[in-house]
Amino acid sequence: MHIVKQNIERADPAVIEALGKAGVATVHEAQGRTGCLASHMRPIYAGARVAGSAVTISAPPGDNWMLHVAIEQLREGDILVLAPTSPCDAGYFGDLLATSAMARGCRGLVIDAGVRDVRDLTRMGFPVWSRAVSAQGTVKETLGSVNVPVVCAGQAVDAGDIIVADDDGVCVVRRAHAAEVLKAAEARLAAEEGKRARLAAGELGLDIYDMRERLAEKGLKYV
Amino acid sequence: MHIVKQNIERADPAVIEALGKAGVATVHEAQGRTGCLASHMRPIYAGARVAGSAVTISAPPGDNWMLHVAIEQLREGDILVLAPTSPCDAGYFGDLLATSAMARGCRGLVIDAGVRDVRDLTRMGFPVWSRAVSAQGTVKETLGSVNVPVVCAGQAVDAGDIIVADDDGVCVVRRAHAAEVLKAAEARLAAEEGKRARLAAGELGLDIYDMRERLAEKGLKYV
Amino acid sequence: MHIVKQNIERADPAVIEALGKAGVATVHEAQGRTGCLASHMRPIYAGARVAGSAVTISAPPGDNWMLHVAIEQLREGDILVLAPTSPCDAGYFGDLLATSAMARGCRGLVIDAGVRDVRDLTRMGFPVWSRAVSAQGTVKETLGSVNVPVVCAGQAVDAGDIIVADDDGVCVVRRAHAAEVLKAAEARLAAEEGKRARLAAGELGLDIYDMRERLAEKGLKYV
Amino acid sequence: MHIVKQNIERADPAVIEALGKAGVATVHEAQGRTGCLASHMRPIYAGARVAGSAVTISAPPGDNWMLHVAIEQLREGDILVLAPTSPCDAGYFGDLLATSAMARGCRGLVIDAGVRDVRDLTRMGFPVWSRAVSAQGTVKETLGSVNVPVVCAGQAVDAGDIIVADDDGVCVVRRAHAAEVLKAAEARLAAEEGKRARLAAGELGLDIYDMRERLAEKGLKYV
Amino acid sequence: MHIVKQNIERADPAVIEALGKAGVATVHEAQGRTGCLASHMRPIYAGARVAGSAVTISAPPGDNWMLHVAIEQLREGDILVLAPTSPCDAGYFGDLLATSAMARGCRGLVIDAGVRDVRDLTRMGFPVWSRAVSAQGTVKETLGSVNVPVVCAGQAVDAGDIIVADDDGVCVVRRAHAAEVLKAAEARLAAEEGKRARLAAGELGLDIYDMRERLAEKGLKYV
Amino acid sequence: MHIVKQNIERADPAVIEALGKAGVATVHEAQGRTGCLASHMRPIYAGARVAGSAVTISAPPGDNWMLHVAIEQLREGDILVLAPTSPCDAGYFGDLLATSAMARGCRGLVIDAGVRDVRDLTRMGFPVWSRAVSAQGTVKETLGSVNVPVVCAGQAVDAGDIIVADDDGVCVVRRAHAAEVLKAAEARLAAEEGKRARLAAGELGLDIYDMRERLAEKGLKYV
Repeated sequence: MHIVKQNIERADPAVIEALGKAGVATVHEAQGRTGCLASHMRPIYAGARVAGSAVTISAPPGDNWMLHVAIEQLREGDILVLAPTSPCDAGYFGDLLATSAMARGCRGLVIDAGVRDVRDLTRMGFPVWSRAVSAQGTVKETLGSVNVPVVCAGQAVDAGDIIVADDDGVCVVRRAHAAEVLKAAEARLAAEEGKRARLAAGELGLDIYDMRERLAEKGLKYV
Repeated sequence: MHIVKQNIERADPAVIEALGKAGVATVHEAQGRTGCLASHMRPIYAGARVAGSAVTISAPPGDNWMLHVAIEQLREGDILVLAPTSPCDAGYFGDLLATSAMARGCRGLVIDAGVRDVRDLTRMGFPVWSRAVSAQGTVKETLGSVNVPVVCAGQAVDAGDIIVADDDGVCVVRRAHAAEVLKAAEARLAAEEGKRARLAAGELGLDIYDMRERLAEKGLKYV
Repeated sequence: MHIVKQNIERADPAVIEALGKAGVATVHEAQGRTGCLASHMRPIYAGARVAGSAVTISAPPGDNWMLHVAIEQLREGDILVLAPTSPCDAGYFGDLLATSAMARGCRGLVIDAGVRDVRDLTRMGFPVWSRAVSAQGTVKETLGSVNVPVVCAGQAVDAGDIIVADDDGVCVVRRAHAAEVLKAAEARLAAEEGKRARLAAGELGLDIYDMRERLAEKGLKYV
Repeated sequence: MHIVKQNIERADPAVIEALGKAGVATVHEAQGRTGCLASHMRPIYAGARVAGSAVTISAPPGDNWMLHVAIEQLREGDILVLAPTSPCDAGYFGDLLATSAMARGCRGLVIDAGVRDVRDLTRMGFPVWSRAVSAQGTVKETLGSVNVPVVCAGQAVDAGDIIVADDDGVCVVRRAHAAEVLKAAEARLAAEEGKRARLAAGELGLDIYDMRERLAEKGLKYV
Repeated sequence: MHIVKQNIERADPAVIEALGKAGVATVHEAQGRTGCLASHMRPIYAGARVAGSAVTISAPPGDNWMLHVAIEQLREGDILVLAPTSPCDAGYFGDLLATSAMARGCRGLVIDAGVRDVRDLTRMGFPVWSRAVSAQGTVKETLGSVNVPVVCAGQAVDAGDIIVADDDGVCVVRRAHAAEVLKAAEARLAAEEGKRARLAAGELGLDIYDMRERLAEKGLKYV
Repeated sequence: MHIVKQNIERADPAVIEALGKAGVATVHEAQGRTGCLASHMRPIYAGARVAGSAVTISAPPGDNWMLHVAIEQLREGDILVLAPTSPCDAGYFGDLLATSAMARGCRGLVIDAGVRDVRDLTRMGFPVWSRAVSAQGTVKETLGSVNVPVVCAGQAVDAGDIIVADDDGVCVVRRAHAAEVLKAAEARLAAEEGKRARLAAGELGLDIYDMRERLAEKGLKYV
C-alpha cells in the first residue's frame, strides 16, 4: 500500500522554465482558469518565482518521515509537493531538510501543512508555499507514499506535473499539457502588452474589449 | 436592478487628505470606535497609507465585469471598494486593471475577495487591501452594480464615503460626518502627544488616566 | 475573583537569553515537542527573536484595561502575554501602550487577539505576536486579572514562565524546567551542526539516520 | 453617541406574515438575490419559520446589557437582531431573556454571536439564528445602541426592516420594499408550481427553460 | 474546453449497494484509510445512508447552470457530485432541482458549496452532503463541465466512481477498485463482530490487540 | 516523557452529579464565567447532559493509540478528554471504543478532534462533544500520555477535574473548587427562579435589575 515510485517522467526543462517566467496567473488562465491551489497556500517570503517537476508526497498528519524518502528521489529542477492525509499544520520541514533538498537540486516546497525555520529558509533562498508557519515538530513512525497521485490544497497533482509558484500562489500544469499551455500563455502575454499601453494611456477596458453593447443588452442602466 | 450611478458626491479633498494622515486607528476611535472593516482585510504590501472617496462595486462571485464599468466612474483621488454578493476569494483584479485605474487617478482597491499580480502591483505602488491573494481568474458574464450601497467586510459603505487604509486595515467614514470626524481625530492626536512623552518617561497609564480608584471600586485585588 | 499577583518568580536571565538564542523550533523539540502556541500567532514583522518572562493577562473581550494594570508589574526582560476570556480580534494594544511597556523594559507582546499601530510598533522595534492586526478599539470597563495562569492560543502559561518567540511563532517553557530544557536544546543544536554539513554535501537523511531498514520493515515498497 | 430609538416604523403585519410564508429562499430571489445573511447563521433547532420587524442592537463584544434595553422596545411580532461591534461568539442570550422577550411578543432572535440555554429555548419554542452556541457569559458594563442601523452577518439592517428566517437561514427585506417584494415572491411561487409538476414527471429543466440553444452557443460540447 | 461526457462506466450495482451497507468509516478503512472528503461536508439531516455512481460537475462559483445539464445524464442509482472552481457557499440546489433529480433516479447530492430548501429536501427524503446551507441564489451564465474529473472537498472524483455517504460524511471509491474494496470491507466487518462482544464484556483493547508489549518497548511508563 | 498516571483523585460523586444537573451555563457563571471550552465543541446529538471526572489524554495528530491505554484507567462516572498535540480532525473514536468505554462505566467523550460512527454512538446513547465528525481513520504508532494536564479546546484540564457537558457545550470545574462552585451554582439557580416568573409576567429586566439609573449615568439617550 505504501510505495515509492522511483522513475517518473518529467517535462522538457525549457518548457518548465518558460512556464515559470509566465507566472502563476498567466499559466492558470492559459489552461482555462484551472490548476490553482487554494489561496491559503502562501509563500514564506515575497519575491520567489519558481517552476519545476513535482515529486509528490502523501504523508500522515504530524509525520515527516516520507520527506526523507522523497529527497532521495529528487533531481535537479524538482519541487517537493506534500499533502497530508488529514488536515494538519505541524511544521514538517525546516532548515536541515532544506539543506538536503537543495543539495539535490530542489527548487522549493509546496506543502498543505506547516513549515518552520522560516528565517533560515529565507536566508538560504529556499522558497516554500504552505498553509501555515509552525514550529510544531513531527515524528517518523508511519509510512506514506512518494510519487503517487495526491490532492494538494484542492488540486490533483501527479508526480512529474509542473508546479509554477510565485507571489500569487501555486498552479499545477499537467505534464501532458505543458507545451500547449506554454503556447497559450505566451500568446496571452503578447496580447496583454498592447493592452497595457492603451490602458496606461487612459483608454478604457469598456472600449478596448467592446463591452458597452453587451452590458446594455444584459440590462445595465446608467443613472 | 443593475445600475451604475454616475454622479456621486465626494467629500472635501483637504478633509480626505487629513483623515488619511490621521490613520485608520485614530479615525476609527474619533468616530466612536466604528467603521473598521473586518480584520481579514490585509494589505498586499506594508507601508501603504491612503484615503479617498469610495467608488463602490457590488459584484457576483467570480465575475469581475463590473470593475471595468467602475473604472470609467473613477476620478482623481478615488478608491475602488468591491463587495462580492456571496463569499469568494477569486482574483478579481490584477496589473492590467491597476494600470487602467491608476491612469484615472485611483489611489487603491479595497476588495472582500482576492487579488493577483501582487508582485506587479507592489512594484507599481498600487495598494490593495483584500481578503485573499489568489491567481484564480474570473469571468465577465453577469451584471452587478456600481456606486450603490454595499456591505464590504462587515461595514456598510456608500459611494462617496471616505475610505482610510493603512497597515492596520481599512476604515470607512460617512461622507456627511467627514469634517466632524476629522476634528475629533485631530483633537485625539494632539492629546496623545503629551501622553506619549510621559509614558516614554516611565509614568504609568494607571496614574496618567487616574485609574487606580476606579479599579479598586470594581474590586481589583493586589496580592 | 479579579487579582493582580505582584511578586512572581522569574527564571535565571542567562538561561532565558540562551533559550532565546536557541529559537522556538529547537526549544520546542528540546522539551519533547511541547509548548508551541497555535500557528495563528504571527509576528507583525519579520526578524524579531526574543525571550523573556511572562507577565500574564486574562482580559475580557474588547477590554484592554488590564494591560494598563499589567504594565506596572513589568520588569526588565518581561514579555506581556494576553489571553481574552472569549475569542476576540479587537486591537487591544498600540503605540502608546508599547511606549509605556518599553519604558519598563518589556521585550514584546504575545496576544491571542488583535494589535494595531503596527507601522509604529515596527518602527519602534517592539515585536508582537498576535492572532490579528486590527484597528478596532477597546474599552476600559471590566476587570480581568494579571499574573494568573492563562491559556493563550492553546497553551497553558503561568506568570514567570519563559516565552520564546521568533519568525516560527511562540513557545512557552515552564519556569521549573528552563535549565533542563536549555541543556537539551544546546545538545540538539550541537548534534545538528555535523548533520547540516553532511546533508549539504549530498548525503541523505535516509543514511545518516539509518532509516532504510526500518522503512523496509514497515513495508515501504520501491517500484 | 449611544442611543435608543423608541419609535420605529414597522411594515404591514399582513405583508410580514405573507413574506414569512414565502420563506427565505423565495424572498431573497424575489428581491434580486439580495438580503441573505451569511451562511454561518444557523438555527438552534430545525423547523422554525418566522417573519417579523427588526429591533436592532449594536452591542460591544461580550456585553449583553443592550439586550435588556432592547426588550423594552419590543412589540408583538418583532424580532431581535444583534450585531456585535467586533467578532464575538459569547452567549449573549439564554432562557431568562427569552422568557422576557416572549412576554413582549417577540418571535425570535438573530444574533451574529453566541446563544446559550439552547435546550430550554428549543422547549420554549423560541427560535434563534446565531453564529455559535456558547455557554460563555457576558457582562453589563458598556453601552451600545438600539434601533440604529447595523450590519449583521454581512447585511445592513435598519430598525423596522422585515426579517424572514427559516431552516435555510435569514434574509432581510427593506421596509420600503416589503409590499413589492411580496408581490414578486408570490409570482415566483406561482410560477414554480407548474414547473415542479413537470419536473416530477421527468421533464428536463434543459427543455422547460429552453436552455439547449444557449448552451450550444456558449460552446458546450457533448462527447 | 467545456464538455459533457455522456457515456460513463458505472460499477456493478450489487457492489455499490453492499458498499453503502458497509458505511463510510468501514469503506474508507478498507481502502487503506483513503477517500474521505473533508469533514466540513455535513448531511442536511441525520440518518441518511446512500451509495451510488458519481455524476460529476465542475461549476463556476455562484452558477448552477451545469446542474441542469448534469440531471439529463443521471441514471437510476447515481449521485450528483459538484465541485465549484473557486470556493463558494451559495445555494446551488433546492427543491425543484431535487424533484427533477429524483425523477431520474438520483440518490443524493454531494456539493462542496451550499444547498437550500433544506426543509423541503428533508421532507422529500433527498439527502445532501454540503459545505453550507445557504439561501443565496445562483445564476445561469457561465459554462462548466459534466462527468470530468473533479476535486471535491479534497478528494479526486471521476465520473462513475462510487460515492458512499452517511452521518460520518462522504467517501469515494475508485470504480476500478470497488470489488476489492468491498471484499476488504466485509472482512473488516466480520472481524469487528467478535471484538465488539469481547469489548462489551469488559475485555480491554490493550489485551485483545496485544498492545502492552509494544507500548512498553516504545517507552510508555505507568506511574 | 510519555506516562500514564494510574491513580488520580476524583471529586465527590454527589457533587459531580449535582453540577451536571445545574448545567454548563450555570456552572460556568458560578465559577466567575470561566471554564468553557471553545464553542466549536459540539455534541453529536441533542439532549445529552452529563458530568464526570476527566481522564485526560494527550495524543499525537492522527493517532488514537492512547485511547486504548486510557480506557483501562476509566472508572464508573469518568469522562474521556482528548487533546491532540497539533490540530487534527481525524476520527479518533468510534463504536468499538465506545463499547469498550461504556463497559468500564464511561459517561462520554470530549475530544478536540474528530469522531466517527456517530449513528451508532447515538443509538448507543454514548455522548460525544467534538470539533468534527470525520470518518478519517487513525494509526497506533506514536505514544502520548494519559492523566497528564492538557489544554483541550482552549481550557486547561487536569485529570480528575469535573467535566460538565450539555447542548450548550462543555465546561471544566477544577476538582479543588467543585464543592464551592456547586454552592454558587445552586444559589444562582434559586435566584433565577423568582426572576423567571417576573419576566414571564412581563416585568422588565431594566426594572428587576435596577438598570435604568446606571444606563443614564453612562450616557444612554432615548430618542
